[in-house]
Amino acid sequence: MSTVIALETSDVRFPTSTSLDGSDAMNPDPDYSAAYLRIVTDADDDLEGHGFVFTIGRGNEVQVAGIRALADHLVGRNVEDLLGNMGETWRGFVWDSQLRWLGPEKGVMHMAIGAVVNALWDLKAKRAGLPLWQLLSRMTPEQLVELIDFRYLTDALTPEDALGILRAAAPGRAARETELLASGYPAYTTTPGWLGYSDEKLARLAGEAVADGFSMIKLKVGANVDDDIRRMRIARETVGPDIRIGTDANQRWGVDEAIEWMARLAEFDVAWIEEPTSPDDILAHAAIARGVAPIPVATGEHMANRIMFKQFLQADALQVLQIDATRVGGVNENIAILLLAAKFGVPVCPHAGGVGLCEAVQHLSMFDFVAVSGTTEQRVIEYVDHLHEHFVTPAMVRRGAYRAPVAPGAGTEMHASSRAEYAFPGHD
Amino acid sequence: MSTVIALETSDVRFPTSTSLDGSDAMNPDPDYSAAYLRIVTDADDDLEGHGFVFTIGRGNEVQVAGIRALADHLVGRNVEDLLGNMGETWRGFVWDSQLRWLGPEKGVMHMAIGAVVNALWDLKAKRAGLPLWQLLSRMTPEQLVELIDFRYLTDALTPEDALGILRAAAPGRAARETELLASGYPAYTTTPGWLGYSDEKLARLAGEAVADGFSMIKLKVGANVDDDIRRMRIARETVGPDIRIGTDANQRWGVDEAIEWMARLAEFDVAWIEEPTSPDDILAHAAIARGVAPIPVATGEHMANRIMFKQFLQADALQVLQIDATRVGGVNENIAILLLAAKFGVPVCPHAGGVGLCEAVQHLSMFDFVAVSGTTEQRVIEYVDHLHEHFVTPAMVRRGAYRAPVAPGAGTEMHASSRAEYAFPGHD
Repeated sequence: MSTVIALETSDVRFPTSTSLDGSDAMNPDPDYSAAYLRIVTDADDDLEGHGFVFTIGRGNEVQVAGIRALADHLVGRNVEDLLGNMGETWRGFVWDSQLRWLGPEKGVMHMAIGAVVNALWDLKAKRAGLPLWQLLSRMTPEQLVELIDFRYLTDALTPEDALGILRAAAPGRAARETELLASGYPAYTTTPGWLGYSDEKLARLAGEAVADGFSMIKLKVGANVDDDIRRMRIARETVGPDIRIGTDANQRWGVDEAIEWMARLAEFDVAWIEEPTSPDDILAHAAIARGVAPIPVATGEHMANRIMFKQFLQADALQVLQIDATRVGGVNENIAILLLAAKFGVPVCPHAGGVGLCEAVQHLSMFDFVAVSGTTEQRVIEYVDHLHEHFVTPAMVRRGAYRAPVAPGAGTEMHASSRAEYAFPGHD
Repeated sequence: MSTVIALETSDVRFPTSTSLDGSDAMNPDPDYSAAYLRIVTDADDDLEGHGFVFTIGRGNEVQVAGIRALADHLVGRNVEDLLGNMGETWRGFVWDSQLRWLGPEKGVMHMAIGAVVNALWDLKAKRAGLPLWQLLSRMTPEQLVELIDFRYLTDALTPEDALGILRAAAPGRAARETELLASGYPAYTTTPGWLGYSDEKLARLAGEAVADGFSMIKLKVGANVDDDIRRMRIARETVGPDIRIGTDANQRWGVDEAIEWMARLAEFDVAWIEEPTSPDDILAHAAIARGVAPIPVATGEHMANRIMFKQFLQADALQVLQIDATRVGGVNENIAILLLAAKFGVPVCPHAGGVGLCEAVQHLSMFDFVAVSGTTEQRVIEYVDHLHEHFVTPAMVRRGAYRAPVAPGAGTEMHASSRAEYAFPGHD
């Protein structure tokens, strides 16, 4: 029997805008940041649950305020009750009738819920002595289905559908765990492709990516089509015909512009076009998907919740689904999204990078491989090689694959020294 | 030449949950609240711009933090530049690349932008000595189009489309201004229909609504179908066959449930079913609209932005469009939504009630009548008769119609004494 005694927050910001790491057509100067939280209990095990929302700078204090607004849902609560009924715990946050008005299920308040839910999963996994992916992969189909809120989903995915998918994958779980621990999970890298980099830096980093064993890289596009053609040519000539090259427009275009732009890039054999337009625009994505075929449309990192993912799948508006660890309502909602993707037969290729996103999201793809889709075919997790040193259990990529984490927890714990060093002045 | 010298915020909460005013199937105990702001300048005219986001209690402090995050966009800026280029001003907020990550264009941060934009319009209207509806109604079609961000809209509404709609309505503007000042704008009332009210109170208030001259009332539904049937019968028997009765499920249902539920209420001649399911679910609303026809589907009060409204219209997912004064990015974005509705020929019946929403949104419908749609046919503005006394220029409804405001400003200024009396302890 233990009790939550504190929800501690901090406003952590890394001054990444000075190096143009992370620059794209819509985000020219991000300062990668984390609205960070720790859940502290009175158990004598020294274990804490850590979580965060990734932001890109200004407004990180608003996100911290969102997390703090959830303290009343946690402090004083019985820890075993919270962790033992994670479906109920999730619903308690999302269906708080007053807080719900601030979304509903979108933006600052929903991301705050996601961070707190993820911190609880971190604590639960640490208590179990397992990495999150393994904890989830060893839950029964019935336990997993209980985590999911099916309201607004049943026209596409019922509890019975979900159980069916999970039960079908159950027999191979042990073998896939072994395979994952031996071989890891395929990664691709965005490191070469930021818009702010020179042609020389692009070519050098693209060459290094191939040498490092990556089978796919990604380039930011959308600011200037002639620049994009030049950069795609450099990238393709550098990596050769066998390496996949994805493109990412970061919401820059309307429908016609997206189709026309991609027609000019198609000659370079594009693996996918990511975020061609507003992440809210299901119908526009569907029109773009028809217009740029056979180039697949990839999106999801800015999609607010499972209800949006459901519709993108129903409307054939995406062919590659990109979950994000800190945009939706945490692990529970991402499991719902993985099941939706499995139901529609669409591959999941998570968004990562930023700060801590690689550390967090790898657990979800690995769980998907072991217990949901049962495959890594056509699936890759994004990787960007910066800021990992700030995490207690940093993501490890070797020869183009994420190594399966073995440390207990969700991967979301940042070093106390990093939190202190990069604490934003004037907050916390 | 004047300069913004301060953005002052306050966290104002009215303890409405004690009376069950405002209770519905999803919001059993709202405390109507305002995340409030004042824009103060160094001009010697004593004029301030006031705005707010309506919330229902917990989390209002997060909304206040969102508004504060915009101070750097305002303080020190030239007032005439800001007010003289409101399209540019809007884009400056919405396209702040770092703040945008917190939405994009949804939730706390987007509502914060809406409140600040509305406060600027309040100041602009006060400086012009006109009520907002009249200020807008006297702008040229070209000036109005300049207010709108057409990114993500042009597959449904181009600047040329918008100009065409506004130019077509221009000849009748003066006559409609006169008509509005004489006759007001039709209202309907939700006062009788809260779920928390007894049958006796429902019947009494429904009778009073008819006596007060309203031609439409609305009942909350969705908690229990047998209760809903009983309450609809009482309401219909009380008001007779000629008064319209709308219903509002406040996002309670999935697709099948909505269709089945409304089949059981159809015998009472339902004017519309409002928010049958998640406000994000375009495809589900479209399916429900097909399933409940000829009952129209009404929605919009929780819709995050113009991109969502666009898709609901494209998909025939609503037949009555409900704008809200403080959910989207303020006056500019609501003008875009009014033009979308006009393009698709769908009537706009605003959401109001709460605190200050009647005061604010009436200006938008009146502008729509004078300069956009040119009609009040099939159009009504929601009215709930509480909390108006806290506003400097309270909404006035007489014989079932909103009187056209004549005081300068946007209607969004709350008495300083009310702000002080209902300031939430521990914040501001």
